Amino acid sequence: MDGNSSRQVLLRAGLSQMRRHGYNATGVQAIIEQAKLPKGSFYHHFGSKERFGEEVVAAYFEDHLNRVLRRFLDDEALTPRQRLLSYFAHVTTLLKKDGFACGCLIGNLTLEAADTSKRIQQRVSMIFAAWRQAFAGCIAEAQAVGEIGTTVAAHELAEFLLSAWEGAMLRAKADKTSAPLDLFQRLAAERILSP
Amino acid sequence: MDGNSSRQVLLRAGLSQMRRHGYNATGVQAIIEQAKLPKGSFYHHFGSKERFGEEVVAAYFEDHLNRVLRRFLDDEALTPRQRLLSYFAHVTTLLKKDGFACGCLIGNLTLEAADTSKRIQQRVSMIFAAWRQAFAGCIAEAQAVGEIGTTVAAHELAEFLLSAWEGAMLRAKADKTSAPLDLFQRLAAERILSP
Repeated sequence: MDGNSSRQVLLRAGLSQMRRHGYNATGVQAIIEQAKLPKGSFYHHFGSKERFGEEVVAAYFEDHLNRVLRRFLDDEALTPRQRLLSYFAHVTTLLKKDGFACGCLIGNLTLEAADTSKRIQQRVSMIFAAWRQAFAGCIAEAQAVGEIGTTVAAHELAEFLLSAWEGAMLRAKADKTSAPLDLFQRLAAERILSP
Repeated sequence: MDGNSSRQVLLRAGLSQMRRHGYNATGVQAIIEQAKLPKGSFYHHFGSKERFGEEVVAAYFEDHLNRVLRRFLDDEALTPRQRLLSYFAHVTTLLKKDGFACGCLIGNLTLEAADTSKRIQQRVSMIFAAWRQAFAGCIAEAQAVGEIGTTVAAHELAEFLLSAWEGAMLRAKADKTSAPLDLFQRLAAERILSP
């Protein structure tokens, strides 16, 4: 296995462990066991569990951005407002299939590690900024064609939407039902992304 | 120290540990060391770390309900809508003072333990239901006097508000700024709790 692929194998193992057990409860030992790689390989590629955690959440968002978010937000068959609403509907379906188990790794890592690790705090903050930026671009397009009102700036609507979406995922995880996500979709459409 | 007070000392120690380090990273050893009590006392009162976690989060909410939430929601000097908005403004000030460090223990515990512990999942779900109920009662009063519109049911506005508030606290923790909380207050007032 070359360096690049052992790095990927470790990141995939870390993602699967952290999604199931969280950041604090995931040990380096469990990661290297799942990856079937020596401990030296882990430290060679990442140096510390903290840097590894940063890389795992960055890779997780990159994957979500490319495979899910862009697929909806770049879909020219839909109007800009429809793109956002379709994205939320799609992710609700994914979370439902998963039994509201893992939820959002970015939110999870924020609550678990943003206070104990400055590196992880800065990384999740950057990730949220990129995510909000993607929403804001789409909202601005919708505002330009009159689908969404302009009394609140696109980046503010995007931030509120992102906060409320993270909160709805957290509530779904607590209640093990899609009700908070369904309600989010309805009120986001009627009250936030409204003309 | 009698049984009742050693129980309280353990709960306080657990709260301080869990707020700082989270649930998974808090060991029974650290709790009994801070409480200066023997391990036997911990197991006598709580039986397991899981049941202890449940009791800690329940005591945390009880305290928040009595000392903060009720103080605002029962304040007859304010209109029902003002009560809700004053509550969010007050908690924003508290979170700012704390440097957005701990955030909300109920949200933190949900993301950390709702999948690995059925008991904790059910407990946080019950706590959120009580919290939403408190919001819904106040919203219904505001609807009755025409301060808030009635096109969306009080319990639905309450759930959306609670989700968005949890999300805003998470975002503030990620960015270490009050911006998401300030924006929440503004858009909650203009878009959710609007006439």
